Amino acid sequence: MDDKIKITYPGSEKVYMTGKLHPEIKVGMRKVLLTPTVTMEDGKRIVKENAPIYVYDTSGPYSDPNVKIDLKQGLPRMRESWILQRDDVEQLDGLTSEYGRMRQEDKSLDHLRFSHIQRPYRAKAGRQVSQMYYAKQGIITPEMEYVAIRENMNCEELGIDTYITPEFVRDEIAAGRAVLPANINHPEAEPMIIGRNFLVKINTNIGNSATTSGIEEEVDKCLWSCKWGGDTLMDLSTGDNIHETREWIVRNCPVPVGTVPMYQAMEKVKGKAENLTWELFRDTLIEQCEQGVDYFTIHCGIRLKNVHYAHERLCGMVSRGGSIISQWCSYHQKESFLYEHFDDICDILAQYDVAVSLGDGLRPGAIFDANDRAQFAELDTMGELVQRAWAKNVQAFIEGPGHVPMHKIRENMDRQIEKCHEAPFYTLGPLVTDIAPGYDHITSAIGAAQIGWYGTAMLCYVTPKEHLGLPNKEDVRTGVVTYKIAAHAADIAKGHPGATVRDNALSKARYEFRWKDQFNLGLDPERALEYYKAGNHLNGKYCTMCGPNFCAMRISQNLKSCEFDPEEEARLHEE
Amino acid sequence: MDDKIKITYPGSEKVYMTGKLHPEIKVGMRKVLLTPTVTMEDGKRIVKENAPIYVYDTSGPYSDPNVKIDLKQGLPRMRESWILQRDDVEQLDGLTSEYGRMRQEDKSLDHLRFSHIQRPYRAKAGRQVSQMYYAKQGIITPEMEYVAIRENMNCEELGIDTYITPEFVRDEIAAGRAVLPANINHPEAEPMIIGRNFLVKINTNIGNSATTSGIEEEVDKCLWSCKWGGDTLMDLSTGDNIHETREWIVRNCPVPVGTVPMYQAMEKVKGKAENLTWELFRDTLIEQCEQGVDYFTIHCGIRLKNVHYAHERLCGMVSRGGSIISQWCSYHQKESFLYEHFDDICDILAQYDVAVSLGDGLRPGAIFDANDRAQFAELDTMGELVQRAWAKNVQAFIEGPGHVPMHKIRENMDRQIEKCHEAPFYTLGPLVTDIAPGYDHITSAIGAAQIGWYGTAMLCYVTPKEHLGLPNKEDVRTGVVTYKIAAHAADIAKGHPGATVRDNALSKARYEFRWKDQFNLGLDPERALEYYKAGNHLNGKYCTMCGPNFCAMRISQNLKSCEFDPEEEARLHEE
Repeated sequence: MDDKIKITYPGSEKVYMTGKLHPEIKVGMRKVLLTPTVTMEDGKRIVKENAPIYVYDTSGPYSDPNVKIDLKQGLPRMRESWILQRDDVEQLDGLTSEYGRMRQEDKSLDHLRFSHIQRPYRAKAGRQVSQMYYAKQGIITPEMEYVAIRENMNCEELGIDTYITPEFVRDEIAAGRAVLPANINHPEAEPMIIGRNFLVKINTNIGNSATTSGIEEEVDKCLWSCKWGGDTLMDLSTGDNIHETREWIVRNCPVPVGTVPMYQAMEKVKGKAENLTWELFRDTLIEQCEQGVDYFTIHCGIRLKNVHYAHERLCGMVSRGGSIISQWCSYHQKESFLYEHFDDICDILAQYDVAVSLGDGLRPGAIFDANDRAQFAELDTMGELVQRAWAKNVQAFIEGPGHVPMHKIRENMDRQIEKCHEAPFYTLGPLVTDIAPGYDHITSAIGAAQIGWYGTAMLCYVTPKEHLGLPNKEDVRTGVVTYKIAAHAADIAKGHPGATVRDNALSKARYEFRWKDQFNLGLDPERALEYYKAGNHLNGKYCTMCGPNFCAMRISQNLKSCEFDPEEEARLHEE
Repeated sequence: MDDKIKITYPGSEKVYMTGKLHPEIKVGMRKVLLTPTVTMEDGKRIVKENAPIYVYDTSGPYSDPNVKIDLKQGLPRMRESWILQRDDVEQLDGLTSEYGRMRQEDKSLDHLRFSHIQRPYRAKAGRQVSQMYYAKQGIITPEMEYVAIRENMNCEELGIDTYITPEFVRDEIAAGRAVLPANINHPEAEPMIIGRNFLVKINTNIGNSATTSGIEEEVDKCLWSCKWGGDTLMDLSTGDNIHETREWIVRNCPVPVGTVPMYQAMEKVKGKAENLTWELFRDTLIEQCEQGVDYFTIHCGIRLKNVHYAHERLCGMVSRGGSIISQWCSYHQKESFLYEHFDDICDILAQYDVAVSLGDGLRPGAIFDANDRAQFAELDTMGELVQRAWAKNVQAFIEGPGHVPMHKIRENMDRQIEKCHEAPFYTLGPLVTDIAPGYDHITSAIGAAQIGWYGTAMLCYVTPKEHLGLPNKEDVRTGVVTYKIAAHAADIAKGHPGATVRDNALSKARYEFRWKDQFNLGLDPERALEYYKAGNHLNGKYCTMCGPNFCAMRISQNLKSCEFDPEEEARLHEE
């Protein structure tokens, strides 16, 4: 069964590049193999090879035919030896959260439980274990070298200069401009980096609201996201058995996992926000830290004095976490315990190197509400909190809108950089218009590409079902690919080293009628092939957009005497 | 049968606004009726009406239940009386193109032929009949007042100031900054305007490459495009019976129709570009002018001296018209007859008020080729030609890319404005990356929204099948709606008067859980409802994104004591 969930990409090989500072590092990449270009010159057939293209790969061990996948065992714990070598963590005797222990002792959950739970790690007393701490000490960890290699996608071999060295990575993390999410209890995750001087990343949300259909399905969603290119995965489950589901996901997830701990806290108080307490929330944090969640969205920026700003709005508050804590503040007429206990939160997170994603409870949910007093007041608070996180060596990033019309996107970005001291920005879209329910992956990709170009480090995907219902598998695929487009467009515009290598290779393939190479270099080879087949091509010499007589590229090619392979078409249709 | 092809929009009425300068004008709009907001205050049920929203409407008489549709008769000839009142046109005895006459005399085509062909109109000898001519004379035509009313979408009644007066429209057309396509032989078309100080428009392409499946299907595609919001329609058919198909389309099309006459000319020389002649092309222009085509894409900007620039490129030439005329130039080693005869072309177009769309034969087909010497050399030529068109009172706009990465879009736009003396820009996308075949409606919508914001007047849609095959009906719908998003996002960013009225109404409906209003105000109410139903909602009080306990908007609403209608959900599912 587990072999079925292997991830494959057509015409591609899994390859690894090794570290120099840390030779034990093996950075997985996808190598897309290309067919040669065949031309005729003076009646002679000239064959020119096309070099393979290296592509950033989020599929982890699932795309490596040499790794045996067993969901019950979890993925190989790649980072564990790196972590242990630093000699600054201790293995606990067992879970330390009350809730975690309670669930573990409940025999009725045995059939749901991941079978090989390890004893969690935690920083030794008095020791610091975060990537930010190491970076500040001038230490280049294996994780840092890993992301440097990963970001460059072999561009140096193509003669492309890059500024992304391991030292550069270290410096960005030390300055707080980038986050490398790396919970010591999620050694299965491959290191990646979130910062505006790196590739723009995308996050996928999974998790059902009410009746989840089971653990296997959740793990399957995780792989599905990784297959299409999701860089991190947020598990937003709110149903029963969140704890057990999360264990399965974390153990089998090759990318960092994020959560909104408040959702689980709300389950614990049966949906009554007023019954939330710091103690309960604190226990939830520890529970999830010890499972291996890499970052937490926490809506600490909501202040009692600002809650009423939402009443001036067209769409009030559209953040779940934000509305929950606002409800708590209003009910008790007290400052939010998330804000009050922010330093305590950081002390916990620092022990596991969990990053904090400062959730924007007041993100605008309508373009009318964009860049308003509510949003900017919260941003100011987040700017204060991010420095407090850094003081405790906790990595941090800032969540952002939402719905913002195009002409207000730049202000949003510039202000975030200024007020939050260059901490990475992580936005949901933004949607640039409200009038297209059913197409909000597109309304938001337009804004996402722009804000990514302006400096946003990670984009939270939006699916076609946004505002209407929960996404199914096809919606997730569409959402992820749409966001890969936005992120890649931003990488090109920002001038990321080697960002256009894949575009140029694909366009060359297109121009030379190497259809299969064109598809394989695309973000979704399967869909491209499917659409191509539906096009009812008569032979490989033209695409149905132009027809047999009028293909511009063919006419243009005639001048250059390129040759096409008449059998290629037939082969593609057989696939 | 013809009643089936009526266009309907849920919860909407067809309404008309009348002119002041020209009281005979009736401008069709779609009025979206909204349900009231119901709140509870101190135990009392408060009902507040929500004013209807006026929406720009491209569906013409098809959405008017009082108009009897008969495809064999064609649409009402609304503009005919306006044209005749000007007393500057004459009705010809019959078609004057050789080809048109030949087809008409061919009895074997009778079964294909539109049954009520009228004798065409042409300017009287020595008279000028173009909207640009009238504008330069200071005349505000009914067409100009019509578009002024249409553009404002009733915003003045909402207290929104607008600069779009009939006089402003006249001034923009006189200056060449806007085009009002209005062939005197297409009086069925409702006036619309293309210019950067107006709503951004979108064009839809229809027409099969090889085996068209029949005239009815082509007409059906035309209605489909108009239903979803296509502002103009380009008929790019290249198969048999183009002439007869076009007659059916033009007689039944409520929006301006554009063509690339070169495609038909190529049919006439059986695909041999070298056999093209000016005489044959000239006859094709006259043939189509007399049928009522409103604008022609003509690739006059290709110069013999510039053809070789395409050889420096990654993707050479991707424009069909451009590659055909380049092939002609290279074969004959002569300057293009399109360029040489540009004044003659304008003399013909002026007699019917057909606009010229200067086709960009050298538009980049890969981001690598964007903003290169080839593209900009052609733009310079187009800048020269547009002034020659204006000298003959021919309305003109400029076609643009193609594939352009985000950071090069602004330069493209600014340069077009400068070199082409503010003539409207009409772009295909641009696609901001090459790596997403199967999703190029999205890669291009990202660029389209930006270039629209920067000043592009009309966007040519791209469907998911771009680069892969011909779009089917669903692809057309997706492409049109995607481009409506891009255009609307640009309108908001540009600050078009009243552009956000619909967004705000939709967001208010969303916040108040008036689901049906939310759907009906959207660009695609049917899809929104379909996705909503698929979401398996338990009752109307929350959407499945958040589930029953955690809906942010519901929590946020509790503070404001809004009421929801538990029966609303059930009703939606019954529909």
